[in-house]
Amino acid sequence: MKQISGGVTAAQGFKAACCEANIKYQNRTDMAMVVSEVPCVCAGTFTTNVVKAACVQWDQNIVYSGRAMQAVVVNSGIANACTGKEGFEACEATAKAVEKELGIPADTVAVASTGVIGMQLPVAKLTAGVASMSKTLDAGEEAGTAASKAIMTTDTVNKEIAVTFEAGGKTITLGGMSKGSGMIHPNMCTMLAFLTTDLDIDKALMQEALSAVVADTFNMITVDGDTSTNDTLLLMASGLAGNEKIVEKNADYDAFCEALFFVCRYLARKMAADGEGATKLFEAKVVNAKSKEDAKTLSRAIVGSNLSKAAIYGCDANFGRFLCAMGYSGAQFDQNDVELFFQSEAGRLQVFRFGTPLAFDEELAVKIMQAPEVTVFVDMHEGDAQACAWGCDLTYDYVKINADYRS
Amino acid sequence: MKQISGGVTAAQGFKAACCEANIKYQNRTDMAMVVSEVPCVCAGTFTTNVVKAACVQWDQNIVYSGRAMQAVVVNSGIANACTGKEGFEACEATAKAVEKELGIPADTVAVASTGVIGMQLPVAKLTAGVASMSKTLDAGEEAGTAASKAIMTTDTVNKEIAVTFEAGGKTITLGGMSKGSGMIHPNMCTMLAFLTTDLDIDKALMQEALSAVVADTFNMITVDGDTSTNDTLLLMASGLAGNEKIVEKNADYDAFCEALFFVCRYLARKMAADGEGATKLFEAKVVNAKSKEDAKTLSRAIVGSNLSKAAIYGCDANFGRFLCAMGYSGAQFDQNDVELFFQSEAGRLQVFRFGTPLAFDEELAVKIMQAPEVTVFVDMHEGDAQACAWGCDLTYDYVKINADYRS
Repeated sequence: MKQISGGVTAAQGFKAACCEANIKYQNRTDMAMVVSEVPCVCAGTFTTNVVKAACVQWDQNIVYSGRAMQAVVVNSGIANACTGKEGFEACEATAKAVEKELGIPADTVAVASTGVIGMQLPVAKLTAGVASMSKTLDAGEEAGTAASKAIMTTDTVNKEIAVTFEAGGKTITLGGMSKGSGMIHPNMCTMLAFLTTDLDIDKALMQEALSAVVADTFNMITVDGDTSTNDTLLLMASGLAGNEKIVEKNADYDAFCEALFFVCRYLARKMAADGEGATKLFEAKVVNAKSKEDAKTLSRAIVGSNLSKAAIYGCDANFGRFLCAMGYSGAQFDQNDVELFFQSEAGRLQVFRFGTPLAFDEELAVKIMQAPEVTVFVDMHEGDAQACAWGCDLTYDYVKINADYRS
Repeated sequence: MKQISGGVTAAQGFKAACCEANIKYQNRTDMAMVVSEVPCVCAGTFTTNVVKAACVQWDQNIVYSGRAMQAVVVNSGIANACTGKEGFEACEATAKAVEKELGIPADTVAVASTGVIGMQLPVAKLTAGVASMSKTLDAGEEAGTAASKAIMTTDTVNKEIAVTFEAGGKTITLGGMSKGSGMIHPNMCTMLAFLTTDLDIDKALMQEALSAVVADTFNMITVDGDTSTNDTLLLMASGLAGNEKIVEKNADYDAFCEALFFVCRYLARKMAADGEGATKLFEAKVVNAKSKEDAKTLSRAIVGSNLSKAAIYGCDANFGRFLCAMGYSGAQFDQNDVELFFQSEAGRLQVFRFGTPLAFDEELAVKIMQAPEVTVFVDMHEGDAQACAWGCDLTYDYVKINADYRS
């Protein structure tokens, strides 16, 4: 497997476009479209929030029905959540606009939205945006990058990646883009992510691979503990690489899973590091836990704690907060079995050992915590399961961004 | 029932004292002691955090053993959590100091700590503090107030209350004090609270009343979602009011429960409103839910959401965030059944009705949200259960306080 440049247009058969639709933002692109030359096998994972946006329900209909997917239209600014019947009509109008402009059946057009909840989308602007983008679709790298910028809300950087790997004697490309950066506690995360590949693969197998990978990547990040109404990850496979179709869990399938994990982990970490107001990536790695479930619960509790996140921001090795978060996580354990370390590119430092705090070098602790990526490493000494979760620090800017987001 | 002035010394038989023990804070009182003239029937509720402070385990031994309780010694500054064997020795040394000074058996002396986790308590300072306080114990109102100030950490105001009620032909007094104000997500909450009464009551009945009341009061507040390692609520009943002992659930028991609910709700709301960095009390009231459990889950999710809390701080009627929090709370419901209102002393405003956002007066919304106590009122239209949860807004100051708390 090899990382290459590019994103959502890297794989064969995919074009992208974006435009300034003025849905809520002014003077920036706020709509994007990804279109495949051919109908695609698709897989998806969606928010578990009971309050699902209209677009999530629209996309679930496509993914769960077994129909092909050939395009996805995304807007930033308004989330189309809590919008009742009118919200569904906006989805339908958007898909129908694609059918009208490009001849792609409306029931194979996914839609996704991110932004303020509880506002209606301006349908005329959406359909005008589709018409405009239909004329500028392009398979080049720049078009993919531009699309990844158009879907940003409070993100400070766009997020895209592409890799190649070998399967069935062919070189397969897998690429994608995603956006954060608040209301991020994916289970699934407004996390939106769109992946494209030219792999030829059975739909059920692809969904199985995606669901498994998401559980260890996107679903292990948190910015603020708020699981969005709109989280959507879509994967479209055009099959244009011409590999022997993957219909069982063979070596090709494994190569695909490896590439998918790499891509999803990359985008998930990028999203966590770019959490609203964040100054650094905050990673929790829990090893030797009783079970994978425990390891996940513990690592997510650590990166999810406001107090832990504030300590990471302040470069304060206040390790008691991490132990406290583990303690209320729901996982059962004995603090007398636990060892806890801080680590980063600047070094590694043990601060807690088998129930007892250790004297440690405060200067080194600060140096370690000033790094752009800080890890809290916990050895549970009670099994052999492990997990990693990613979050970010809690800063003044998080409050500032969210105390006045809507208006 | 009648509210009176005073706190932990209001009931017959209780004295309090405090001192500057210089445990971690300088130039302020940081130890307090409450002592009863006679051995008390006691009840308690404690943190559900797996990582329990040494003092929590010490107190649980007393409450669960059925022994009497006659004194409680509290320090602020260091939490005595994650401190191993040395932590337990500090509890024991403190209790033994009380035995030495006052002749009260050490195994009837409760201890409680609040502050930094993972630091050892300076035992010599604790025992010196006990010796000093033993000489200044006083039954006056001022002594109770001084004690309520000594247990504060990041609290900005002390919290105490007292009431009287009639039972068995006697006037009973119930008083107490508590402290917050970070790591507050009681289940049970470093929430510490100490209640005293001169009621004569059966121990099991008193524990039952306390547990029930705590479930609807202290356990319904949250400041930051972090359930502390130290949460402790102790209730001591001296029996000195001379009422006919309560041994069954009669009218006297009901009067006691009512007074207990009033006192606990008062202290819990005070704690939420004085959450770290808070500028206002944030209340969520959920009515007509399918079950009490659902109503609690929903109301807690609303006041627990960082995004909701930031919106409350910014006086932004961004109601989608509240619906989003309800959606990921774990409770099942249909957004098409839901109505949502903002209310405060400045008015009441509906913003969402049966799945659809309503146009509303933004100016009135801001006015409502600028009040010192803001309520999000949700009608689920699916049953007849209700619950109320209390939290506070998320502000720059919360981050500031917690990015540099330990040092």
